[in-house]
Amino acid sequence: MKAEILAVGTEILLGDIVNTNAHYLSQRLANLGISVYYQTVVGDNEERLLKAYDLAFKRADLVIATGGLGPTKDDLTKEIGAKYFGKDMYLHEESYKHIKELFDKLNRPISEGNKKQAIIPEGALILPNPNGTAPGCIIEEGNKVLVMLPGPPKEMEPMFEASVVPYLDKFSDGVIVSKVVRVVGLGESAMAEKVLDLIENQTNPTVAPYAKDNESILRITAKANTIKDAEALITPIEEEIRKRIGEDIYAEGEISLSEVVGEMLVRNNLTIGTAESCTGGLLSGTLINYPGISSVFLEGAVTYSNEAKIKRLGVKAETLESFGAVSEETAAEMAEGIARTAGTDIGISVTGVAGPGGGTLEKPVGLIYIGLYFKGKVKVKKLNCNGDRQKVRNRTVVAALDLLRREISNYIKNN
Amino acid sequence: MKAEILAVGTEILLGDIVNTNAHYLSQRLANLGISVYYQTVVGDNEERLLKAYDLAFKRADLVIATGGLGPTKDDLTKEIGAKYFGKDMYLHEESYKHIKELFDKLNRPISEGNKKQAIIPEGALILPNPNGTAPGCIIEEGNKVLVMLPGPPKEMEPMFEASVVPYLDKFSDGVIVSKVVRVVGLGESAMAEKVLDLIENQTNPTVAPYAKDNESILRITAKANTIKDAEALITPIEEEIRKRIGEDIYAEGEISLSEVVGEMLVRNNLTIGTAESCTGGLLSGTLINYPGISSVFLEGAVTYSNEAKIKRLGVKAETLESFGAVSEETAAEMAEGIARTAGTDIGISVTGVAGPGGGTLEKPVGLIYIGLYFKGKVKVKKLNCNGDRQKVRNRTVVAALDLLRREISNYIKNN
Repeated sequence: MKAEILAVGTEILLGDIVNTNAHYLSQRLANLGISVYYQTVVGDNEERLLKAYDLAFKRADLVIATGGLGPTKDDLTKEIGAKYFGKDMYLHEESYKHIKELFDKLNRPISEGNKKQAIIPEGALILPNPNGTAPGCIIEEGNKVLVMLPGPPKEMEPMFEASVVPYLDKFSDGVIVSKVVRVVGLGESAMAEKVLDLIENQTNPTVAPYAKDNESILRITAKANTIKDAEALITPIEEEIRKRIGEDIYAEGEISLSEVVGEMLVRNNLTIGTAESCTGGLLSGTLINYPGISSVFLEGAVTYSNEAKIKRLGVKAETLESFGAVSEETAAEMAEGIARTAGTDIGISVTGVAGPGGGTLEKPVGLIYIGLYFKGKVKVKKLNCNGDRQKVRNRTVVAALDLLRREISNYIKNN
Repeated sequence: MKAEILAVGTEILLGDIVNTNAHYLSQRLANLGISVYYQTVVGDNEERLLKAYDLAFKRADLVIATGGLGPTKDDLTKEIGAKYFGKDMYLHEESYKHIKELFDKLNRPISEGNKKQAIIPEGALILPNPNGTAPGCIIEEGNKVLVMLPGPPKEMEPMFEASVVPYLDKFSDGVIVSKVVRVVGLGESAMAEKVLDLIENQTNPTVAPYAKDNESILRITAKANTIKDAEALITPIEEEIRKRIGEDIYAEGEISLSEVVGEMLVRNNLTIGTAESCTGGLLSGTLINYPGISSVFLEGAVTYSNEAKIKRLGVKAETLESFGAVSEETAAEMAEGIARTAGTDIGISVTGVAGPGGGTLEKPVGLIYIGLYFKGKVKVKKLNCNGDRQKVRNRTVVAALDLLRREISNYIKNN
């Protein structure tokens, strides 16, 4: 079954609100094995809404409309839905009673507009709205189905789950299962090239690459009669992907790099301290996203000035003089320094030129050194990042977390 | 001129990402006096994308397409755009050079896919992309205009502002001018209540409230023949709003709270140090967003453990014992401690229970103390934040920046 999502509301076309309903419904319909080929937004306008219904039903069998069930004159979704299917409308007593009760509770008189919310197309199924005044409804006509839901997500989502999901069950042919593999340290196109034949030749499961902030994602999606069958289709493809991309894969599913690293630190009881210059606390702030981190994260230092690097971390004045604050040598001494003063197994440091100012020919904006002290050994990674200050800093945090991840992995392997 | 926004990407139809580009573009086109009648989302599918172009140009003269300019084979926006208008494509040398330079900087070989990003429809205007590889482009054919922009908002938004806004100027009839007033420390509904009559009764300019992360926004929008006339309509309304909301207004226009505070610190040459527990470096990391901050931000400490609080900041062991790490007394000593050891005018500290664990009846999750040492005086602000770990920490950072803002304001007034 093909579906189309139609959001009704001039406020979306004016950019006053984000159409999160389309996102929610797309995700849920994908889970239910129903394909969505289009999302459309149309304003509160009789003629254009009628055309939008007509177009949607030329392209799909199931149309889910959100919004336009409100009390005002420009809320037209039900009215035009009834007109499209040639239905009369009537006052649905039970819905009217529900609305009256809500107003009684607030000690407010019910308006004509709110009464209008209980006026429903003849023959439509009624979807109760425990979270607001406007009921939803479904018109069935031949093999066409129009589901009309209220616009506010707090009303729409519970109504969809309670009333629409069970209703749609009869239309679903099988399930769609997706599995996400997360990759870091390899750009989207480099990743895609490694699995190009899988992306191009697979139809079930499909393999699709995405870029997301500073990581890349591969989504493997299979369609089958049961979840188990779909998973069985995914497994060999996932194994092939893992063979090709190897340790650039850091996780599967909905988990962030900072959670993965936090979890590794805690599980292996590796204590850590951070020493940051240009990232200014973003690295420690990101590491600390992981709720259990307090048992191993002992201390962080944000040492912007040379003086602070010397005083707090014991970086040598001569190192700063000979090589500069942005140098391999300073990064190494910062990492050692925080580990020594905080008494940790691991010290990680960042020093660099985040921009927009401060760059030179020799040390341009985007030049970053990440120092890693790990149980007695120090290594330094050099980066050249593109983009503005914020981008450079975010990319640096991801690179630092990824360096930690790989080092901890090696440590686990060798111990 | 009528416009339509067309987002291209199966990932939107699968509900993987929210179509925030349509929101951004709708808002900006409304500001520019260009009407948007439809937003559409279509997948990475040749046939359906071609149909979507055809339909969009039946309904509108200007179509802005986002997404599908990526390096992979299913990125088809330009290719199908060229096909729709019957244009050949060619390698645009300058764009290719830009992409090669980005890859050279990363020491990575350029892939065929990335080369494809520089292949452009004949005769199209090229929109440079300083924030990524894919250039945008504009095809003009008769009175039809197709603007193609990259999908990532960090690339799309600056490209739209720098290249598309000046281009669209010739199509606009009259101007729409918007002014944004930013409010912190007052929720959206509390703010809206103070100016309810303005929101409800104004038609030109209109006044609209928005909630955004941990701040609230009022947008005043006027339509007139000239920018000057529109601004003249806005001024009296803005004055009335400022009279009613007062010092909860922290800025106007597109500026963040951290930039406002950073600018205040630098302009008044007030040096600062941070001492953070539960925010773990997020406060210093946010302050450091302001590019000029290095002249006044001397040092930050992330002191998670009691030991670090004692050793680094000189918090008294007896204070921690008697009142606990999450207490007014500890927050005060942390703020004083960082100012003393870093030798700064201002010391700001955060200690609290960010959750999800660690809460007690007496000190529940969301209890936060912010300490502020300011040239010899200390004050502590207590917060009770709702929400998960990330929400509590983000809200705390905003509250700490707002506290700084109000204290610096008072200091400037009295000196």
